[in-house]
Amino acid sequence: MMFKWPVRVYWEDTDAGGIVFYANYLKFFERARTEWLRSFGLEQQNLLKEHQGLFIVSETQMKYHQPCRLDDLLSVSAKAQEVGKASLVIAQTATRLDGNSDVPTLLCEGSIRIGWVNAQTLKPARIPQIILDYFL
Amino acid sequence: MMFKWPVRVYWEDTDAGGIVFYANYLKFFERARTEWLRSFGLEQQNLLKEHQGLFIVSETQMKYHQPCRLDDLLSVSAKAQEVGKASLVIAQTATRLDGNSDVPTLLCEGSIRIGWVNAQTLKPARIPQIILDYFL
Amino acid sequence: MMFKWPVRVYWEDTDAGGIVFYANYLKFFERARTEWLRSFGLEQQNLLKEHQGLFIVSETQMKYHQPCRLDDLLSVSAKAQEVGKASLVIAQTATRLDGNSDVPTLLCEGSIRIGWVNAQTLKPARIPQIILDYFL
Amino acid sequence: MMFKWPVRVYWEDTDAGGIVFYANYLKFFERARTEWLRSFGLEQQNLLKEHQGLFIVSETQMKYHQPCRLDDLLSVSAKAQEVGKASLVIAQTATRLDGNSDVPTLLCEGSIRIGWVNAQTLKPARIPQIILDYFL
Repeated sequence: MMFKWPVRVYWEDTDAGGIVFYANYLKFFERARTEWLRSFGLEQQNLLKEHQGLFIVSETQMKYHQPCRLDDLLSVSAKAQEVGKASLVIAQTATRLDGNSDVPTLLCEGSIRIGWVNAQTLKPARIPQIILDYFL
Repeated sequence: MMFKWPVRVYWEDTDAGGIVFYANYLKFFERARTEWLRSFGLEQQNLLKEHQGLFIVSETQMKYHQPCRLDDLLSVSAKAQEVGKASLVIAQTATRLDGNSDVPTLLCEGSIRIGWVNAQTLKPARIPQIILDYFL
Repeated sequence: MMFKWPVRVYWEDTDAGGIVFYANYLKFFERARTEWLRSFGLEQQNLLKEHQGLFIVSETQMKYHQPCRLDDLLSVSAKAQEVGKASLVIAQTATRLDGNSDVPTLLCEGSIRIGWVNAQTLKPARIPQIILDYFL
Repeated sequence: MMFKWPVRVYWEDTDAGGIVFYANYLKFFERARTEWLRSFGLEQQNLLKEHQGLFIVSETQMKYHQPCRLDDLLSVSAKAQEVGKASLVIAQTATRLDGNSDVPTLLCEGSIRIGWVNAQTLKPARIPQIILDYFL
């Protein structure tokens, strides 16, 4: 079960090296995770209201393979790599289809651990079963 | 001639006030301008290669009317307000359709002056006629 | 009464044009405003706790004169231009001292209107007198 | 040999959770690395001119331990963890001194691999010896 989300590169994403600033792939990855949740009908404001909790990122591992540039159109993927009681690890990639090939170029890949926390205390808590079910 | 582009609000766009950080509307506005150019077939990397120039922002005037929040879906508009030989003024708004109304809520409006500059020197130059024609 | 705050340009601030991304001057300006308040002993978290309010930006006018680049050291100024009951207009500049001159180069200037709002409702409210006194 | 650099948290760094957005620690870490190089007399624009190369981030591993908030003053550390011919791994932490303790609170820690690349091709290359010597 692999979710994909398109991301266009704008000026705001680039740096003086002429390429996307590496920290911004974390934003691209998060947009894809957010849209993946939304595809299940889960909106983060609603999670907060209904379950008094939110997902926060507790660990990231990123590898940068190829740079990308202004106007590039990326495809960002997300899939569950580990599903635990209190946290999930999401495996993600950013790829780009290049003109003369059917095989997308891998730009960046990462593993993102997101933990469920109580919205008031920010302490770890069990992920509500109704949310967990979407990943199982 | 009014161009519109949808923008979704993610965590990256918000601040500790719980709302979109005001500087980020400039990013939203730029995404809409970029997609507007792209709708004419103009990509910024190509402008650079073919015309050795680029648009840079030289003035902005922004008014913030209503805040917006995580998960909100905005519509960002762009239209030409002034068309000059060396610069354009683009009038832009960000609005949000709220559930119980047909009239979109105005969140933010602005005028953005973009000037054409030589890519090497960053000095002002005349906008290539082929680009100008799209705005006339 | 003019406050000044140094700002160094890092990769995060630049874009693929090789220069500081224009929206980021709003961040630089805000850092200077925040440090200016701090120089009076006013911290924003405390304003929130003690006065149940916060300053939000309601209007900005920016003019971009000269670009700046990675590693540049800027001086950002702030001074009160208008002091009202519910909002202030702060005049700000970003300048850079260039090697062979005593006169700083003006990179960017702007007027930023900040309004005081109730922290819960985000509705405009009167600026607490104790804060206003610092600007009078 | 441990380098430390202070970083203040501003509105721009926070998100709607009321805390620093996790991707922004990568910016804080990079500011510290940049100032560390500057403390050796190495400026990135000069590296580019003199050695036709630049450091790019090729891998990051981050762990987020405790959140931090608006107005917090962090101390960001950097030290060499691995020194290779073509890349370095820099170990970094962000900590905060809390009022009633001498032991700083660990907010975030990470390992950042930076590789030296040719500025034109962005292909990996050997780190110039004069730069490497600072880390040995």
